[in-house]
Amino acid sequence: MIKNDLFLKALKGETVERPPVWMMRQAGRFLPEFRALREKYDFFTRCRTPELASEITVQPIRRFGMDAAILFSDILVIPQAMNIEVQMKPNFGPYLPTPIRDQQGVDTVIVPDVETELGYVMQAIKATKEKLNDEVPLIGFAGSPWTVFCYAVQGQGSKTFDKAKEFCFTNPLAAHELLQKFTDTTIAYLKAKAIAGVDAVMIFDSWGGMLSPVDYQEFSWKYINQIIEALYEDVPVIAFGKGCWFALQEMATSNASALGVDWTITPENARYLSGGNITLQGNFDPSRLLSPPAEIKKMVKQMIDAFGKDKYIVNLGHGILPNIPLDNAKAFIDAVKEYKN
Amino acid sequence: MIKNDLFLKALKGETVERPPVWMMRQAGRFLPEFRALREKYDFFTRCRTPELASEITVQPIRRFGMDAAILFSDILVIPQAMNIEVQMKPNFGPYLPTPIRDQQGVDTVIVPDVETELGYVMQAIKATKEKLNDEVPLIGFAGSPWTVFCYAVQGQGSKTFDKAKEFCFTNPLAAHELLQKFTDTTIAYLKAKAIAGVDAVMIFDSWGGMLSPVDYQEFSWKYINQIIEALYEDVPVIAFGKGCWFALQEMATSNASALGVDWTITPENARYLSGGNITLQGNFDPSRLLSPPAEIKKMVKQMIDAFGKDKYIVNLGHGILPNIPLDNAKAFIDAVKEYKN
Repeated sequence: MIKNDLFLKALKGETVERPPVWMMRQAGRFLPEFRALREKYDFFTRCRTPELASEITVQPIRRFGMDAAILFSDILVIPQAMNIEVQMKPNFGPYLPTPIRDQQGVDTVIVPDVETELGYVMQAIKATKEKLNDEVPLIGFAGSPWTVFCYAVQGQGSKTFDKAKEFCFTNPLAAHELLQKFTDTTIAYLKAKAIAGVDAVMIFDSWGGMLSPVDYQEFSWKYINQIIEALYEDVPVIAFGKGCWFALQEMATSNASALGVDWTITPENARYLSGGNITLQGNFDPSRLLSPPAEIKKMVKQMIDAFGKDKYIVNLGHGILPNIPLDNAKAFIDAVKEYKN
Repeated sequence: MIKNDLFLKALKGETVERPPVWMMRQAGRFLPEFRALREKYDFFTRCRTPELASEITVQPIRRFGMDAAILFSDILVIPQAMNIEVQMKPNFGPYLPTPIRDQQGVDTVIVPDVETELGYVMQAIKATKEKLNDEVPLIGFAGSPWTVFCYAVQGQGSKTFDKAKEFCFTNPLAAHELLQKFTDTTIAYLKAKAIAGVDAVMIFDSWGGMLSPVDYQEFSWKYINQIIEALYEDVPVIAFGKGCWFALQEMATSNASALGVDWTITPENARYLSGGNITLQGNFDPSRLLSPPAEIKKMVKQMIDAFGKDKYIVNLGHGILPNIPLDNAKAFIDAVKEYKN
């Protein structure tokens, strides 16, 4: 049994004294203790070494006492396990030297045995669970098939992911075959994570908001929903589509336990569009953590008041930025813990 | 009198046989005749030479017969005229070597005499009007103060414009002073354009969608609305906020003649959120111009049916991409001209 079950109760829609809080990308980036490890070990070494990944995962919990931990890893471990080369270049981000842009490329992509290829993630989960000692729940995650596809086709980050969209719009058959391969792998991967011990899983659709509502259904949501359907009886699923306000109504009818929302929607509108019943997670603008701590606390209080304390998980609207001062992150977490109706 | 007045009628909300059509960024980028000029003249030479700017402006009209021309220029001619150095680096985009990040920086920014500093734009307008020979209307444009601010503070393009937001959130007084300087210059600039002969003006808020709804009001819309208030009695104003679906309701209450919308909102929802009365412009996904021409035509027809033919200007949801085949752009324009209810 998890001692602090605020997060799990919020996922079930149960009444809580205060909402739970965690921060996307809390493991890494802005923490000095993480930066110390980054000096010594490169990105994929950190991901692949259970002792390092679990240590990085619990660092923010030790410092700030969030109500949930999220496993340190990356959405691109999946394509990496599927015969797609992925490099992580400092000051550049992900780089995939052989982007997939045609049927021939799709044919080279394999659906792997996840226990063989991604066993290191399962070991990291077990190591983390030991360190957490049932104090708080552990979240596992994966990128949405569309978001992984964006990197696999574009070959790197992009403002528009125009190559990824071009592939969809000029060769939809091959694009769908690749999306299905990512979907099948992700389902097996998240099922293995659930068996290894994560208490919830989250699907990050960072680039769904690049698509029109019609194309989002066809190239992204359809596959996310396959994953939710395959997982929800094993473990609660949180689906987060950045910029996907237009799909909230549809997403709310799925078997996801919660939906993530970014900061470009008001809490009131997010509740309205998602129908008012499903648990929501978000949506503080990550840049607003640069405001003075007293202002952060005020804005967090207003945000909780607007979402309501129940069926709500306090979070940012996207990952925490590397340049956030520790005192500001602390103000964000403390404001939730001090929350009174 | 302009012979083809479809665009002006749509701006007034009058009944038309078919909606007018033009494409954001139609002057430049994807046209071979533009690329030929680009080989010979650098970016700011093209902007500053009335003969070149006017030639580039009319090139797409000659080839495709859009219902409106938009002056070839750039939103960054404004900061350039305000004592901020702006370079245009090939394969990189805008680069501002001395970004404004404090009060001292704001103090160096001047509100110029636009006739002196930007007279070349007014000359380009006059040259273009001669070439257009009253066949179609001419649109002048400016960036929104917030969008210009993003570049002036960040110093270059960005996925998040985190430095620009940091400046707003840590030094709001200085940020507002800079935004007001951009606003004052933009008002004078667009008034001069109206006098020089443009038939409508458009304000591009490319990065308004980076802000939360509350921050959008404070750092972007407030200033756009100042511009609209100062201009609307002289010339029709189109306001376009990319990613600003959340502000459509408020924007629709302004004195803008039309609102631009991007492709992440359905036509039905755009009509609903904007109240159903104001003219809308948009919103074809620029990447969807990579689909086969027959498919483009079908999607354009569906889009017009969904928006309705009146109070509607057919356009893309953002600028045309450089890699769009000419036949595909032609299919987009032709589909509108062939439109029947």
